[in-house]
Amino acid sequence: MTGSAMSSRSPGPSASSRSDATRARLLDAATAEFAAKGFHGTTTRDIAGAAGMSPAALYVHHRSKEDLLFAICRIGHQHFLDLVRDAARAATDPTARLREIARAFARNHAVEHTLARIVNYELGALSPEHHEEVLRIRLAIEDEVRTVVEAGATEGAFDVPDTGVVTTAILSLGIDIARWYREDGHWDPDRIADWYADLTLRLVGARP
Amino acid sequence: MTGSAMSSRSPGPSASSRSDATRARLLDAATAEFAAKGFHGTTTRDIAGAAGMSPAALYVHHRSKEDLLFAICRIGHQHFLDLVRDAARAATDPTARLREIARAFARNHAVEHTLARIVNYELGALSPEHHEEVLRIRLAIEDEVRTVVEAGATEGAFDVPDTGVVTTAILSLGIDIARWYREDGHWDPDRIADWYADLTLRLVGARP
Repeated sequence: MTGSAMSSRSPGPSASSRSDATRARLLDAATAEFAAKGFHGTTTRDIAGAAGMSPAALYVHHRSKEDLLFAICRIGHQHFLDLVRDAARAATDPTARLREIARAFARNHAVEHTLARIVNYELGALSPEHHEEVLRIRLAIEDEVRTVVEAGATEGAFDVPDTGVVTTAILSLGIDIARWYREDGHWDPDRIADWYADLTLRLVGARP
Repeated sequence: MTGSAMSSRSPGPSASSRSDATRARLLDAATAEFAAKGFHGTTTRDIAGAAGMSPAALYVHHRSKEDLLFAICRIGHQHFLDLVRDAARAATDPTARLREIARAFARNHAVEHTLARIVNYELGALSPEHHEEVLRIRLAIEDEVRTVVEAGATEGAFDVPDTGVVTTAILSLGIDIARWYREDGHWDPDRIADWYADLTLRLVGARP
């Protein structure tokens, strides 16, 4: 998710929409600051400054820096879960379904690489309760992929020695795109998405 | 590379070996601190304290925190390059060679996950000159893999639509192990290595 994806799309004039817009601005600023300096290297003062507000104003919305990281991780993970579920619904047979999931997962890890790095690499800084809550969404994402892999194996469309390992590898391929992807590189997100859909079908030993 | 892999194996009584041992202790301490708090969240004081020495003593060996990160990244990358080269030499045909490379790469990203996370995720904090130098070693690792992938494709042992993409995906699979691997998990490094060798051969479309 890019900053704009976290922002309120149609900020109206009401007090609650102004508050939503402020919240979104804070999340965008925190995402940028965490990306540049890591969670531990960022202060709430940095984030408030980047959002153009005072530290005191920040605390109206978030009790702590960790609370901001939690909001980013929760929203970010839910966003990835939603897009995986939407992709899974776009097809019926396991091969087409896995292709759609891999394509959406890869594409979004390229486009939203900044957010994806934070939600994948800064999880260790969450409180145990927050970590637990984000983990539940992660497991739901994993379940979506595993379900399709198992369905394909059951139908004989895939050749999968170990569902858990293959599911991990599929997610791994997508997640790691956020590490190596460069906006000024020569591979664009849609091309990466097509290639990774093919590579994912290779990982499950899909029949051509 | 674990902390111990950076340490001098046979510290003799000479002044130079004492200095080597001190250097290794500093690198181990910096690796642990960067892993816990990220590069930007760690101070040279933290590192000196973890190594049981004064900040002044640290500066005898390293001019800055960035210089410590550079040493870790250089040594760490060279270590991974060495093991990939050793693996490549352990076999002659591309299929067996790629299997050995994938096995060694995966196994070591599990065993040395702490170091691997730092050298892969903190590269952005290096100075341009240091980044350039580490990048040269990264490209040498990539070259080793690409050479085997190309050899297999040329021989007709592999079916590779795009060598660059497949090489990236192979390295990605291994690197991302450092993110998800847990020492208390139910998959041990050797088992992961075997599975990932098989998955890598699937990525290149190796003939069974």
